[in-house]
Amino acid sequence: MNITEFAQYAGVSKAAVSRYFNGGYLSAEKRAQIEAAVEATGYRPSMQAQMLRTRRTRQVGVILPKLSSDSCPRMVEGIGSVLEESGYQLLLINTANDTKKELQALDTLRLHTVDGIILIAALYTPEHKTLLEHLHVPIVILGQNFPGCCSVYHDDAGAAQAATAHMLAKGRRAPGYIGVTLLDKCAGQQRRAGFEAALKAAGLPLHPERMAVAKFSQESGYEQAAKLLARNPHIDCLFCATDAIALGAMQYCREHGIRIPEDVMIASVGDSKVGRNAFVPLTSAHLHYKTAGRDAAALLMDLLADPHAVPRSQMLGFELMERESTGD
Amino acid sequence: MNITEFAQYAGVSKAAVSRYFNGGYLSAEKRAQIEAAVEATGYRPSMQAQMLRTRRTRQVGVILPKLSSDSCPRMVEGIGSVLEESGYQLLLINTANDTKKELQALDTLRLHTVDGIILIAALYTPEHKTLLEHLHVPIVILGQNFPGCCSVYHDDAGAAQAATAHMLAKGRRAPGYIGVTLLDKCAGQQRRAGFEAALKAAGLPLHPERMAVAKFSQESGYEQAAKLLARNPHIDCLFCATDAIALGAMQYCREHGIRIPEDVMIASVGDSKVGRNAFVPLTSAHLHYKTAGRDAAALLMDLLADPHAVPRSQMLGFELMERESTGD
Repeated sequence: MNITEFAQYAGVSKAAVSRYFNGGYLSAEKRAQIEAAVEATGYRPSMQAQMLRTRRTRQVGVILPKLSSDSCPRMVEGIGSVLEESGYQLLLINTANDTKKELQALDTLRLHTVDGIILIAALYTPEHKTLLEHLHVPIVILGQNFPGCCSVYHDDAGAAQAATAHMLAKGRRAPGYIGVTLLDKCAGQQRRAGFEAALKAAGLPLHPERMAVAKFSQESGYEQAAKLLARNPHIDCLFCATDAIALGAMQYCREHGIRIPEDVMIASVGDSKVGRNAFVPLTSAHLHYKTAGRDAAALLMDLLADPHAVPRSQMLGFELMERESTGD
Repeated sequence: MNITEFAQYAGVSKAAVSRYFNGGYLSAEKRAQIEAAVEATGYRPSMQAQMLRTRRTRQVGVILPKLSSDSCPRMVEGIGSVLEESGYQLLLINTANDTKKELQALDTLRLHTVDGIILIAALYTPEHKTLLEHLHVPIVILGQNFPGCCSVYHDDAGAAQAATAHMLAKGRRAPGYIGVTLLDKCAGQQRRAGFEAALKAAGLPLHPERMAVAKFSQESGYEQAAKLLARNPHIDCLFCATDAIALGAMQYCREHGIRIPEDVMIASVGDSKVGRNAFVPLTSAHLHYKTAGRDAAALLMDLLADPHAVPRSQMLGFELMERESTGD
């Protein structure tokens, strides 16, 4: 049954049928007529046929490493709100922190299914480079700055520098550092660069033995803090690359009688709910995840409207939230 | 260009082209040939044509009230893992706690787009009932038990009863309650029923003036705790329907010199990361969100395989995590 036959059956115009299925205005009477006809015939508009005509699916693929985190749900909410306003649907692909899966997802999506892609990536590998160069659909990278791609990311270096400088400004002189892998450009490289810049600005030397690398988890933060503080009992403040790592470090301090902020100040980046509510509220740089999601989606909508638009990289600012873990 | 023409152009078999686009095994040489041909021709397999043939989109719509919560990301991760194993894609629809939007999403999805729906609903209204009765696609309700629908939900009453009983077993005799709207069957009605059952089992009377209703937020928990504890200074333990509400209550106690657990014990349901890391670690019933998501998706896959399968409702157990907020 096509739309003409269905309209005839329902006793309304084709335009009315179209309005019904696209959410436009209809009188209650016509709506009821069409509803009854749908019930009787099981008619569905052929979205597929429409897709064949327009070669568009009106879907955007969002590839992300882990949904149950502090940042991802907020970024996806931002993306979703813009897509909805623009009449696009959100196809979610969770790669469970598996780079191979991420590359696979890109490979699948680039061949069919979606009109555009938003990639919330952690690592940037040579395989990413190759795939991104051969994409047939527009893509926006969220949270990282990939060379040559449209991207929306945070001022990770500035945030880490501000958090560290805040502790140094309070007279601390033996800063420790627990970061993440340098394969992660933003949370790894950029936040470490920010930490180092703060030390340099304060005229402090860099002590590699006071620096450690953790995984993206509270457990790993706990372990690295244990090693670092045992090796360097003089550390009087600690910059952690993420709130989760900071929470692990705080837990270690709590269990070993190290007072926060008296003995060790702690600051990090992310401003998570967990950090705000921790036993010592955590000083942390707030990143605008939801706004970043909205901006990335808006950028993608621009690319869909004009595939030859100039690639743009956009960096968002931060706000240092000063709390008790730094004596505020 | 159809697959036959493309295979000819690439100099490989149609089967090889099909394996390429479906992720099957291919020699490196053939893969390179096909890749080069894709580059040269821009050929994409016609997913749309395939959909027209099969009348399936291999997509499942997941409708949820708010992505940035403790429970939703974990449920969606569970759903996603099963859909991926089954070769389905996940279409995410965030209704931002707007029941009207939720009904709209159901209305849109039921007419086209997806092969099945998983609805993470909070409220069950007469409009839900009508829409659910007229769905043309299989649906599974996650987190609530809707009459007549396939559903996966938690033992909310049991969890609330266990959390309350735990405090009463420690000798507390003046329990307070901060719940949520009874329009929410699970977090509202069921958890309240559990609280009441615990009092009854302990031979304690119900004091309506010791009970309050909050919104699903820490701020609202704070406000309601303020009113409740000012009105009833004798309350010696407090059951909160959610961790967020409990956190608000704990914050109020902290700011007003009320010691936890000495003066007031606090327990709730949800076992969130924020609760585990709070200044007084929160006793809370752990609900198996990820498992619930997996089970809901598995149930939907069963329905897709056999649309006439008997509707099943499945209730998942809980685990009370005893922590310092109840003196553990």
